[in-house]
Amino acid sequence: MPTLHGKNFVAGSLTDSDRTFAATSPLDRGDLPGRFCLASLDDVEAAIQAAAAAAGLFAQTTGEARAAFLERIADEITALGDSLIERAGLETALPAARLTGERGRTVNQLRLFAALARDGSWVDARIDRAMPERQPLPRPDLRRMKRPMGPVVVFGSSNFPLAFSVAGGDTASALCTGNPVVVKAHRAHPGTSELVAGAIQRAVEACGLPAGTFSMLHGEGGVIGTALVKHPATQAVGFTGSRTAGRALCNVAAARPDPIPVFAEMSSLNPVFLLPGALADRAGEIAKGFAASMTLGVGQFCTKPGIVFGITGPHLDSFIAGLTEAITAVAPASMLSADILTAFGHGRDSLSGDAGMAVVTHSASPADAAKTQAAAIVLETDAATFLARPQLAEEVFGPFSLIVKCRSADQFGALAQRLEGQLTATVHGTDEDVATAHHLVAILATKAGRLIVNGWPTGVEVCHAMQHGGPWPATSDSRFTSVGSAALERFIRPVCYQDVPPSLLPDALKDGNPLGIMRLVEGIADRH
Amino acid sequence: MPTLHGKNFVAGSLTDSDRTFAATSPLDRGDLPGRFCLASLDDVEAAIQAAAAAAGLFAQTTGEARAAFLERIADEITALGDSLIERAGLETALPAARLTGERGRTVNQLRLFAALARDGSWVDARIDRAMPERQPLPRPDLRRMKRPMGPVVVFGSSNFPLAFSVAGGDTASALCTGNPVVVKAHRAHPGTSELVAGAIQRAVEACGLPAGTFSMLHGEGGVIGTALVKHPATQAVGFTGSRTAGRALCNVAAARPDPIPVFAEMSSLNPVFLLPGALADRAGEIAKGFAASMTLGVGQFCTKPGIVFGITGPHLDSFIAGLTEAITAVAPASMLSADILTAFGHGRDSLSGDAGMAVVTHSASPADAAKTQAAAIVLETDAATFLARPQLAEEVFGPFSLIVKCRSADQFGALAQRLEGQLTATVHGTDEDVATAHHLVAILATKAGRLIVNGWPTGVEVCHAMQHGGPWPATSDSRFTSVGSAALERFIRPVCYQDVPPSLLPDALKDGNPLGIMRLVEGIADRH
Repeated sequence: MPTLHGKNFVAGSLTDSDRTFAATSPLDRGDLPGRFCLASLDDVEAAIQAAAAAAGLFAQTTGEARAAFLERIADEITALGDSLIERAGLETALPAARLTGERGRTVNQLRLFAALARDGSWVDARIDRAMPERQPLPRPDLRRMKRPMGPVVVFGSSNFPLAFSVAGGDTASALCTGNPVVVKAHRAHPGTSELVAGAIQRAVEACGLPAGTFSMLHGEGGVIGTALVKHPATQAVGFTGSRTAGRALCNVAAARPDPIPVFAEMSSLNPVFLLPGALADRAGEIAKGFAASMTLGVGQFCTKPGIVFGITGPHLDSFIAGLTEAITAVAPASMLSADILTAFGHGRDSLSGDAGMAVVTHSASPADAAKTQAAAIVLETDAATFLARPQLAEEVFGPFSLIVKCRSADQFGALAQRLEGQLTATVHGTDEDVATAHHLVAILATKAGRLIVNGWPTGVEVCHAMQHGGPWPATSDSRFTSVGSAALERFIRPVCYQDVPPSLLPDALKDGNPLGIMRLVEGIADRH
Repeated sequence: MPTLHGKNFVAGSLTDSDRTFAATSPLDRGDLPGRFCLASLDDVEAAIQAAAAAAGLFAQTTGEARAAFLERIADEITALGDSLIERAGLETALPAARLTGERGRTVNQLRLFAALARDGSWVDARIDRAMPERQPLPRPDLRRMKRPMGPVVVFGSSNFPLAFSVAGGDTASALCTGNPVVVKAHRAHPGTSELVAGAIQRAVEACGLPAGTFSMLHGEGGVIGTALVKHPATQAVGFTGSRTAGRALCNVAAARPDPIPVFAEMSSLNPVFLLPGALADRAGEIAKGFAASMTLGVGQFCTKPGIVFGITGPHLDSFIAGLTEAITAVAPASMLSADILTAFGHGRDSLSGDAGMAVVTHSASPADAAKTQAAAIVLETDAATFLARPQLAEEVFGPFSLIVKCRSADQFGALAQRLEGQLTATVHGTDEDVATAHHLVAILATKAGRLIVNGWPTGVEVCHAMQHGGPWPATSDSRFTSVGSAALERFIRPVCYQDVPPSLLPDALKDGNPLGIMRLVEGIADRH
């Protein structure tokens, strides 16, 4: 394993400080090798100023140049080899197979955004040509394209130390579209962050990009994170984490003299509705799938199904029996950090101690707190209790879920209506069930960013049609996604060029379409 | 002229109250016929609840149905005939020719959004089909489209009593995409608002739409407006008005338990840069164009050029001479309201009283305060003073502009860099000037939503390529526009359908593309 320097990456330079911290192993709560320097407010200033200084040059790079940069980052991450997987495993307790898969996802995501940068059509070019003879007034020549916004601050997330962290989707989509990035590294995996930041740093140098294109700082969210969001030169923010932290960042951004957009992905129950036919046909299979989705990655997915609605009766009993069998067999496993385990325990105990709640099942083996372990647990309540007690709809991050027993499927609509915004909502049903589910699905479409039928929400495909976002508190702005090609829309803004001569027009807007991109010319989309 | 009932439009019903107000004529400051009822908080509750109740049904209407609705609104507005123009003229002091033109713009805008609704491609449908054999994991079938967000609150603007008011671009784009609308009428033109609301109301009835599709309330922004934005069922807000009011609404929305997006169009100086060759070639012509743009509509355009940068010397002197000739001849004219005249006077006096400022020219005739008249005025200062005193960059709404005298064009970059966000930025230059202006234009592209070369910013074309928006304080979110077809993007959010059977899929996402819309299938855009 390479030695970690523990320094902050400030626009091509490494800075240190007297205030350091170590990463903690969730597996034994002991310190891991390496001391990491807490960034200073001077580091914040230097990183953002360098990003602002780099923004103009970086915005003018070609799509090909940014594609090569993103591909170089992917190559550099791949070249880190086992050392990255090993360090990430030590810091997060996630198994090597999972981390290897996540690295693949991260690298593929960088390559997807490289392809988007190379294609160039993301600028959404639109041309409405002059009509000098139009009455009563002539129309000028109007051409519009999207451009980078400037420095984007990205907060690394704890639960995906690669795919939603230093070189994750936020960074990839910001860099793809020409925005410098300053990452606030997550405190739970500083060594992993350093390795990936080094990979990006080498790519910046190899591609001859301005040093301010990328920085990464270690530090507390409440100090360094807040300072990054407050900085006048910061133009947008990407965040994945808790509702409390996300709200705090949104508040900071909204209180600026010039508020800036924050895309915060925060909290979701990911409700599952079990329609009666599905439960009659395959209660056991659904129970197995649910248990697997609920405990995947120790329940530390933002899309973990945290609540399931079913109709009281023998088929729901069969589902519960199957779930009990599956959950009992789930070995307690180490969570990402002691803080997350503590929050999990608080959430679980708060809900299980609430009136009208009962424990359905939990892992048979006890959890070892010294290993930061959580046992899986499922509670149950009835629909009337759920409707009466809004606190039962709070997300518990970890291997926890709540069964809500209903009298009939007629209650599903009212229950769905009471939910807050969600990343996902899932329905299990037979063809016959589905034929009666239009009302429920229509409500869920107003609540969630992704609707799933007869599947599970925990897989989030990186593609054009993905939507990873939803109304508050799932995210801070339901009009955007943090996964998939559309994620880049968060960090770009349109500029219209009126009667601007060809010599000053960006290539994307020139006659003859020299870049060969998709454009909307007089309302018609094509590549001509 | 028809009798005005003065009531609030609450989801198809008219409500009144004991608390009433009259419209004031800016021409003589006297009360105009009609008393208008201030809406109650009960009206707010009823209007928003009805909008929420209508949202599901309205969202499910076909594009054709919404197109017919928007066209019916256009027809109903046209059918109001001269009575609308006359009442609007009395309430705003805008001349009939201007109002007739604005009505044409409003009606055309409704028809444009009708065409967009009928075409249906605004849903941005994307399909990535299942790959059941993919390793290591199969890919599910993923289909994404944009959907309406739900009740949108629209604030009528004072300066475009038709095109940015009750049936303006915010309302048209929200209705086009299936969102119910609740309008907070602007207090300065309640009769105009009532006439237009009546037109929309008749269209709702004629088209058989849910009553909650449209409501309009009279009332103070700080009471009724705030309550509308705070209401839990409100999903988005459109606003055009002052920086102070826009900021207040943004703050209210950001402080909700579930913050919602506000698109507020607020404040812009619309800077103009005069490059040396242009000034040498045609100082007189530029002066005439500038004076006309600056005083159009008594300077009450959000795109009024409020500041102009030129290089000290004989050519700038020629420009100033031409401007003086033009502005001296501008007759003082009535502003939209006494409040706006008061604010104009405060802004003008505050800036003209500032150290280092001098009056260049003003209307020769005195303004008659009893007629709410403003005289046009131009001040001047030098670049050093401007850079040292940020308060000189405050917008003064009305026929006011400031000339900033520079030593050389080399200062333009630094001056542009110091500006806040703008709706527009304009450069006048010869071909030779333009060849040296890349740096300036690059900076302006980071500051403004629309760049204009050798033209004037006050015309805002309604088309696909328009961008009417810019970084704060021009608007609250530079990623969106309030004019042009892209304005509808403010009020829609994506939903992804994963493995959803055809019977539950919206038509826009079905195999075979039954709606014939543009879709992105496996990353390829077409209508098949």
